[in-house]
Amino acid sequence: MTHRKAPDSSRRSEASRRAIYAAALALVGETGYAKTTIEGIAARAGVGKQTIYRWWPSKAAVLLDAFLDLVEQAADRAAEPAIPDTGDLEADLKLVLRATVDELNDPAYDAPARALAAESVVDARLAAEFVSRLLEPQLQLYVKRLTAARETGQIRAGTDPRIALELLVGPLAHRWLLRTLPLTHDYADALVDCALYGLAPRGAPRA
Amino acid sequence: MTHRKAPDSSRRSEASRRAIYAAALALVGETGYAKTTIEGIAARAGVGKQTIYRWWPSKAAVLLDAFLDLVEQAADRAAEPAIPDTGDLEADLKLVLRATVDELNDPAYDAPARALAAESVVDARLAAEFVSRLLEPQLQLYVKRLTAARETGQIRAGTDPRIALELLVGPLAHRWLLRTLPLTHDYADALVDCALYGLAPRGAPRA
Repeated sequence: MTHRKAPDSSRRSEASRRAIYAAALALVGETGYAKTTIEGIAARAGVGKQTIYRWWPSKAAVLLDAFLDLVEQAADRAAEPAIPDTGDLEADLKLVLRATVDELNDPAYDAPARALAAESVVDARLAAEFVSRLLEPQLQLYVKRLTAARETGQIRAGTDPRIALELLVGPLAHRWLLRTLPLTHDYADALVDCALYGLAPRGAPRA
Repeated sequence: MTHRKAPDSSRRSEASRRAIYAAALALVGETGYAKTTIEGIAARAGVGKQTIYRWWPSKAAVLLDAFLDLVEQAADRAAEPAIPDTGDLEADLKLVLRATVDELNDPAYDAPARALAAESVVDARLAAEFVSRLLEPQLQLYVKRLTAARETGQIRAGTDPRIALELLVGPLAHRWLLRTLPLTHDYADALVDCALYGLAPRGAPRA
């Protein structure tokens, strides 16, 4: 997917870009990914469809940019860093997993995030964009925090932070994507406890 | 989704059912869920579309039955029980997670499983069918095995088996659904080690 940057040279094109993002997010929420079209986005945004084609090669590219913009705006509003390092790993992880639960339960994110995730499940090319531009930067924040924790001895010496983070975010994604059970703060806390301290009794010998 | 059981009263209707399942799985693999239609399945199976409508209310229902049949046939061929109980929890879990990795990497499962999972991400009604008929029976095998492990002291007394199993299957689903990194036997083993023995050093006090 070749991605051409939206221009920010004039106030008018910035206003068009905002209108296109808003239209894309609204349409995908109302009608789903399959029924959302470039034509529909253009009509709702009050721009010509050539304006959209000039900036983006596909509806997937528009929607991904619109969603990234939504996520970035929310991050700008939040005063806290994405994953704090207070020295208390358990508390820091519970804070960030609870925030993730709140985000996944937020209706403003739900429809566009589900549309992009569902399309990524069946479209390897979109998945590569979704992962590299949205997911991986978030996962790298965990890698950084867990690597710091390993240096201070709060994580076992041999642990791969890239696998360790999946014990935390994998179960959240599983519940959210496949809608098995509700996502709650208690669940976030239980995940952190299980992942940090393990399922086996602490007295049991490490095999 | 009202589900009418496919009849098995005659050899002819059994042959039609088999042809419909094969056509549904082939089409969804070749063209994806969105472009698969009841008409297309009927044409490929060599049956009238009324035959399909008589047995199933929707294409999602046909595809779910076809995929369940595929999974059941594979289970019938496997001599081993789904999750063994040899008394060695670590070995038993590594065995089953490696088998799950092999299944998720099998092209015969990949396209229909992705089609059903992707549709479940955006369709809560299909998700409820997918979870209750396919996913939850598999997850209950983990609940049973982990409950047995808790009774023999291999899992900590306070652990909820329903949450514990998600530390094992959640990360696998995350890698598979979002295509972040490859699914390998080494990864399956690392997940079991991390989940059982925890990320924190074994000597660290339990908070």
